[in-house]
Amino acid sequence: MLWGGRFKKELDPAAMRFSSSFGTDYRLLEVDIEGSQAHAEMLHKIGILSGAELKQIHDGLNLIVAKWHDGSWQPKPDDFEDVHSAVEQRLTELIGSVAGKLHTGRSRNDQIATDEKLWIKKACASLKKNQSALQKSLLAISEQHVYTLMPGYTHMQRAQPISVAFHLLAYVEMLERDKMRLDHVMQLADESPLGSGAMAGSTLPLDRDMTSRSLRFSKPTSNALDSVSDRDFFMDLLHACVVGMIHLSRLSEEIILWSSAEWHFVKLSDAWSTGSSMMPQKKNPDMAELIRGKTGRVFGAYIALSSTLKGLPLSYNRDLQEDKDAVFDAYDTYHDSLPIMSEMIGSMEIDAGRFSDELEGDFSLATDLADKLVIKGEPFRNAHRIIGEVVQFAEKFSKKLNEISLKELQSIYPGFESGDLELLSIRNVLERKQTYGSPNPELVRAQIERWKLSIL
Amino acid sequence: MLWGGRFKKELDPAAMRFSSSFGTDYRLLEVDIEGSQAHAEMLHKIGILSGAELKQIHDGLNLIVAKWHDGSWQPKPDDFEDVHSAVEQRLTELIGSVAGKLHTGRSRNDQIATDEKLWIKKACASLKKNQSALQKSLLAISEQHVYTLMPGYTHMQRAQPISVAFHLLAYVEMLERDKMRLDHVMQLADESPLGSGAMAGSTLPLDRDMTSRSLRFSKPTSNALDSVSDRDFFMDLLHACVVGMIHLSRLSEEIILWSSAEWHFVKLSDAWSTGSSMMPQKKNPDMAELIRGKTGRVFGAYIALSSTLKGLPLSYNRDLQEDKDAVFDAYDTYHDSLPIMSEMIGSMEIDAGRFSDELEGDFSLATDLADKLVIKGEPFRNAHRIIGEVVQFAEKFSKKLNEISLKELQSIYPGFESGDLELLSIRNVLERKQTYGSPNPELVRAQIERWKLSIL
Amino acid sequence: MLWGGRFKKELDPAAMRFSSSFGTDYRLLEVDIEGSQAHAEMLHKIGILSGAELKQIHDGLNLIVAKWHDGSWQPKPDDFEDVHSAVEQRLTELIGSVAGKLHTGRSRNDQIATDEKLWIKKACASLKKNQSALQKSLLAISEQHVYTLMPGYTHMQRAQPISVAFHLLAYVEMLERDKMRLDHVMQLADESPLGSGAMAGSTLPLDRDMTSRSLRFSKPTSNALDSVSDRDFFMDLLHACVVGMIHLSRLSEEIILWSSAEWHFVKLSDAWSTGSSMMPQKKNPDMAELIRGKTGRVFGAYIALSSTLKGLPLSYNRDLQEDKDAVFDAYDTYHDSLPIMSEMIGSMEIDAGRFSDELEGDFSLATDLADKLVIKGEPFRNAHRIIGEVVQFAEKFSKKLNEISLKELQSIYPGFESGDLELLSIRNVLERKQTYGSPNPELVRAQIERWKLSIL
Amino acid sequence: MLWGGRFKKELDPAAMRFSSSFGTDYRLLEVDIEGSQAHAEMLHKIGILSGAELKQIHDGLNLIVAKWHDGSWQPKPDDFEDVHSAVEQRLTELIGSVAGKLHTGRSRNDQIATDEKLWIKKACASLKKNQSALQKSLLAISEQHVYTLMPGYTHMQRAQPISVAFHLLAYVEMLERDKMRLDHVMQLADESPLGSGAMAGSTLPLDRDMTSRSLRFSKPTSNALDSVSDRDFFMDLLHACVVGMIHLSRLSEEIILWSSAEWHFVKLSDAWSTGSSMMPQKKNPDMAELIRGKTGRVFGAYIALSSTLKGLPLSYNRDLQEDKDAVFDAYDTYHDSLPIMSEMIGSMEIDAGRFSDELEGDFSLATDLADKLVIKGEPFRNAHRIIGEVVQFAEKFSKKLNEISLKELQSIYPGFESGDLELLSIRNVLERKQTYGSPNPELVRAQIERWKLSIL
Repeated sequence: MLWGGRFKKELDPAAMRFSSSFGTDYRLLEVDIEGSQAHAEMLHKIGILSGAELKQIHDGLNLIVAKWHDGSWQPKPDDFEDVHSAVEQRLTELIGSVAGKLHTGRSRNDQIATDEKLWIKKACASLKKNQSALQKSLLAISEQHVYTLMPGYTHMQRAQPISVAFHLLAYVEMLERDKMRLDHVMQLADESPLGSGAMAGSTLPLDRDMTSRSLRFSKPTSNALDSVSDRDFFMDLLHACVVGMIHLSRLSEEIILWSSAEWHFVKLSDAWSTGSSMMPQKKNPDMAELIRGKTGRVFGAYIALSSTLKGLPLSYNRDLQEDKDAVFDAYDTYHDSLPIMSEMIGSMEIDAGRFSDELEGDFSLATDLADKLVIKGEPFRNAHRIIGEVVQFAEKFSKKLNEISLKELQSIYPGFESGDLELLSIRNVLERKQTYGSPNPELVRAQIERWKLSIL
Repeated sequence: MLWGGRFKKELDPAAMRFSSSFGTDYRLLEVDIEGSQAHAEMLHKIGILSGAELKQIHDGLNLIVAKWHDGSWQPKPDDFEDVHSAVEQRLTELIGSVAGKLHTGRSRNDQIATDEKLWIKKACASLKKNQSALQKSLLAISEQHVYTLMPGYTHMQRAQPISVAFHLLAYVEMLERDKMRLDHVMQLADESPLGSGAMAGSTLPLDRDMTSRSLRFSKPTSNALDSVSDRDFFMDLLHACVVGMIHLSRLSEEIILWSSAEWHFVKLSDAWSTGSSMMPQKKNPDMAELIRGKTGRVFGAYIALSSTLKGLPLSYNRDLQEDKDAVFDAYDTYHDSLPIMSEMIGSMEIDAGRFSDELEGDFSLATDLADKLVIKGEPFRNAHRIIGEVVQFAEKFSKKLNEISLKELQSIYPGFESGDLELLSIRNVLERKQTYGSPNPELVRAQIERWKLSIL
Repeated sequence: MLWGGRFKKELDPAAMRFSSSFGTDYRLLEVDIEGSQAHAEMLHKIGILSGAELKQIHDGLNLIVAKWHDGSWQPKPDDFEDVHSAVEQRLTELIGSVAGKLHTGRSRNDQIATDEKLWIKKACASLKKNQSALQKSLLAISEQHVYTLMPGYTHMQRAQPISVAFHLLAYVEMLERDKMRLDHVMQLADESPLGSGAMAGSTLPLDRDMTSRSLRFSKPTSNALDSVSDRDFFMDLLHACVVGMIHLSRLSEEIILWSSAEWHFVKLSDAWSTGSSMMPQKKNPDMAELIRGKTGRVFGAYIALSSTLKGLPLSYNRDLQEDKDAVFDAYDTYHDSLPIMSEMIGSMEIDAGRFSDELEGDFSLATDLADKLVIKGEPFRNAHRIIGEVVQFAEKFSKKLNEISLKELQSIYPGFESGDLELLSIRNVLERKQTYGSPNPELVRAQIERWKLSIL
Repeated sequence: MLWGGRFKKELDPAAMRFSSSFGTDYRLLEVDIEGSQAHAEMLHKIGILSGAELKQIHDGLNLIVAKWHDGSWQPKPDDFEDVHSAVEQRLTELIGSVAGKLHTGRSRNDQIATDEKLWIKKACASLKKNQSALQKSLLAISEQHVYTLMPGYTHMQRAQPISVAFHLLAYVEMLERDKMRLDHVMQLADESPLGSGAMAGSTLPLDRDMTSRSLRFSKPTSNALDSVSDRDFFMDLLHACVVGMIHLSRLSEEIILWSSAEWHFVKLSDAWSTGSSMMPQKKNPDMAELIRGKTGRVFGAYIALSSTLKGLPLSYNRDLQEDKDAVFDAYDTYHDSLPIMSEMIGSMEIDAGRFSDELEGDFSLATDLADKLVIKGEPFRNAHRIIGEVVQFAEKFSKKLNEISLKELQSIYPGFESGDLELLSIRNVLERKQTYGSPNPELVRAQIERWKLSIL
């Protein structure tokens, strides 16, 4: 243990088991050692460590990482309070009492905050890679389906015809915001807590600029108390995971619907779906269901940490130890869901002709006709009412819109002209759209090209 | 895999890793086998299994449990979809194709629901044991401190003097409600889903009453669709954990405060507190902080499952797989926090004399004096105002209440009599309380006796 | 204000606005007065109030309720701290200083706890009425649709044919559990806190049994500190609302799907759906969407109160004031969603023939055929595999199951007999089910009759 | 109603009440009209509206805002579906059928998204003003207390002496991050959805760049489907409120503790605290308790919206209507808590001498002594152990650190020198700190100056 000089009794083994975080924070081992090496170099610079001592520590820490990676050092979770204790004890075994100099001017409080911020940078970078890969999967499909018609929905009701490409590009937009959100996370986390000590800095002349620089932070934090109490950066990351998972859950829901018998719009690959132990005919969109289901656990992680932080007096309290379980779980969930989604959608078959017949003459063409009346000079509200009556007429006689004759139309509104009938056909429905951001194929294609250039 | 007859491609290994629940649901292995044995006996009764087949299956399953317990069978998580698959495949290896008969008339959908309900009964029983143990710890301390004075607080301000016993008995009450809540969980979960199949029952004459009885459920569920979609019982358990942890978090907060330098009211045992890696003098109430901090993760589990269930169409969807991670984590957290709390409070020292001097003449005696004016005939609101002025007077001259003379009192309110001065002393402050549920030592002692008889 | 004797400065108006709860807790006015009347009677019995004073107070309180109901007394939220202050001040205006006696031996701490528990009983009763009404709506539809076929789904994929009645009865089961859950809420809340004072009882001989009885509680609470700190009953009610809303959200999701163009299974009444401001043809299932959406806010209320309670030291803290906003909002949401759901489903048209043709020969009949092979002696796993091959064969040649000839079947598995072909037809698919809880029409009808007798 | 051409039955009044959002979204009235005016100008530019029509609409809308503000137009919530309907209907009453042209090429779907984004910009600006004001309050206090000693805590245990200024500056840091977080919210919300229509853009040549510019967005959104489905900006704002409230809750907790009898460190102004209805002596930190308590409701709002969004298929669904209740409630809570906190801390008295005696010779000076041993060449771990023994010695003989003699020190560790004794005194304890971010008064003062220049 890294303390105990004053204690007469050993920590109860049950207390040790209950309080050890090593089962979780072992994931910080690499960044912990990175931080220690930066700290050691600085201690050398200010004269606390001799050159020889620095080398011993440096080499010892490198050895620990190496042994950890090749599995020859396998510390047991219940034997250590945390990753810092495990590393320090191992270092002591390796290089003796020199190891005891490493903790000079440092507390586990600033050490853990530093570790977490080092980790978060790598975590964000890795998430962004996965997000970009999913964007690329979406773009690859979109390119094939600029003209593939499908109904656009509002309220789960068919609203207006759109294209598959247009639909999927909505998710590319979401992912782009998700990436920007991570940029903000990193930006807000970009200050080095190292050298804040337990919460009041140090009487030793620690060079915090030096460690900040060598760990590639933009600058050291400005208040030691805040430095060890702050977990905003983890809240920000959790939030980014929450929003990211919401987006994936929406796409998952759609894939589940699209692969239902009722939609029969996409077919998932056998490699990305499962069967039933009882019903031999089943083929289930499990990956999409799981992603949707796992969204809940990310919400849970957000609530877990925010509840933990609420009302906590400054500075460090042991409650904060819980931060890692929440964050790692949410991160893993989101991080791993991204490529699963990429693979699943990349291997699914879209039935490109599924909706073309069905949308021919469909009520979802009504809006364009209303727009036409506006061009003829009708206030939109009148136009809306008139087309409402057209729809009612069609419904009453069980007709599709393109089965209504001009005469019938004119009996509802005399201003209809023969050219207007075109609008009741699905032909050119996409091309008719004129606004930026619409499913007009030309615009959609331009967007795809733009994305392909900007997503690395 | 328990399916696949219709699939042309193997499940992608990444999909397998992402979707396997065996890393979590292995904890259901025992109840899963219990359920399978009940199912097998029933299949025998209705003629699907011969006596010899039943015996093979029964013995095979027993062997699996035994090998699992002694560690000679160690299936790897990523090799199996879930615990059901692992057991069934192992059984097939052991007894051949007879194993394939066990799944007759059963789906993993009703199987998992049955497993979970079997598990929940044991889980509740185990929680109740831990809750009772904590109640007993509280009672043991209370017995020593029926007369130990401490301030009772409202708004974190000293309100009226109470006793330590009285304070701790509040937690005994909470724990009793927590036990009642678990009784309700068990009661609502007490119906057997086994025999519901995938979601529509079976064309085979399964005897659901028989399996329900042999698994000690009160009766079979009445709607197969509901049976496999329902996770109310898990929501109920999570809720019980949430409320239970809220109670523990409140006690934890108090212990943290009481062991601060400002309160210096209790001293934690070295065996249940930790030190600092940087500050040699520190002794920290880590166990209490951790319990308080872990409360957040139980909230998270509740939100995780409720979000997962929201808007899920019937019947089984793979999202439901997530239920176990949330429930097991919350259960473990609450389950393990209880004995930690018992031990921590059982080993702490209470400074029984800490407050006796300080409360002598304290403003927190004011209410009793106001009550006295009521007995003299003053409407309570007047009495409240008068005593408010007494307090203001004392504050102005930096006096404690018992340092005010009768004359001074009478200058504020002529009706004060010499006997009233007694009420400004801490002596007999507890004995003066007359109402049921108050800290009157006689009543408190009676409560303790009552609890000792009722808590087994 | 009900305090202030000791204060030199008035509460800042901004602080008053920020802290007043009267905008919310005015809803407790009636139960507050009920509690005050019980308290007054008890004060009379123990000699604090004369008969004449009791009458004055009693009549004054009655007058306040009357004026409140007829709108002639309209106190403004920002003028009062809370409902207790508003009532007491009004009473003082009406009957003078006698009003000041009413608060004898009582604090707002036990008063509010009593009010809340009185309210919760009425709230639960009202919820149960609405739940029963929804059950009856479901039963009324079910009676018409015992033989109406629809696909049962797992993973949103067609699994096995079921009936609409069977499907809706699943929700009747859920609602029954929801009612039981409320019974538990009431049972756990059934102790009277009145007479607990601020947190330490009283030196006056308050008769707590008497007030408990007259307010129809089963008994007084046993620990005054717990009595004013406890909000378990509100957590329990919130939990009941959470689970209840989850159930409604699932039904909502289904109604939304069923009324989509893809399902075209039900048609909502114009009176319970809305249109689009832009798209004249739209008819949207808004009520179902809103119920589904409002589920989130009930989750939010649960988290709001649990976060507020976490780590709160005993006894009363002002944080607790927040309890009512959360609880009233969740209660209203759930309470009002129930009749909206009843009306919406009661007025929707189900297309009873929608699925009968489509399910004829559908793959979802495969399980029954597998069961048949089991009766022929095949281990279920083999049967599953064989039928999987049958399905694969059908898929390959784009056939429905009932378009496969006996010969073709026998080429896959020689044991098929001509009688087995019947199982590939939808005819009698429900009647074939044998297990309790299955969609067998006879069993379903029996269930409906049982429900009709038990739901009052 | 803005629809209905096709409906035969009126919306049921209960459905209207259940679904109307006007009780909430009336707050968007101003931005709604702002958006409508920009839309009208654009319609004029593309030839849909004549100059005269534009003027009519423009003036009509101005009149509506004016009448709304002076209270002469008071629409009732239950009479309208939403703010858009209320405004449009009123406009029709004022200027006749020309009003019907305003909705050309626009749906409530893009209209509400635009309103919400216009609102969010103003909301963020207003929050930032309040945050800056609180920073200034903190700085004003800090300036007075650069040398005021207090214990710094970890684990609620005294760790090392710090200053009040240093402590409060930690909150200035948090607030600065909170402001940066809002900058990100605004940046991510800075695209105009107007012109996205229901979800597929328009066949009319709407000039989206023009409306985007005139509403001061950086550019129009790029995908119409995403534009009406997206509520990321609200999630981001909710997250900013969550983190902001966490910070306020921590400060609240500290103020509650500091004003307890045990800490007796600060005294709240009578204008910002309240009394008890029962206990005449009470003075309660209600504002701090309420802020702490209200933190929970902001968590609830976050969960409410995230649960609502989860799994929602594109594009607009009525569930989204719930977004405003959650967001407005969280915004109001956080927005109003900031000035309450400013006022409360601005008017509280800090007992500057409270801790100076108590910290003299306190164990919390131990770390500095350990650092001194490091300078003497001891590895920190040894130093830590040695000082641990010194503390144990002091504890055993009930001495403060400065009551230990040099001889006694040397009996533990011979290397102690007489100069080291200085470190056991509180004198110059702050000045001894050397690191950036420490409580060294010179550094703290520099920080305060820096903040004063940067916070406008």
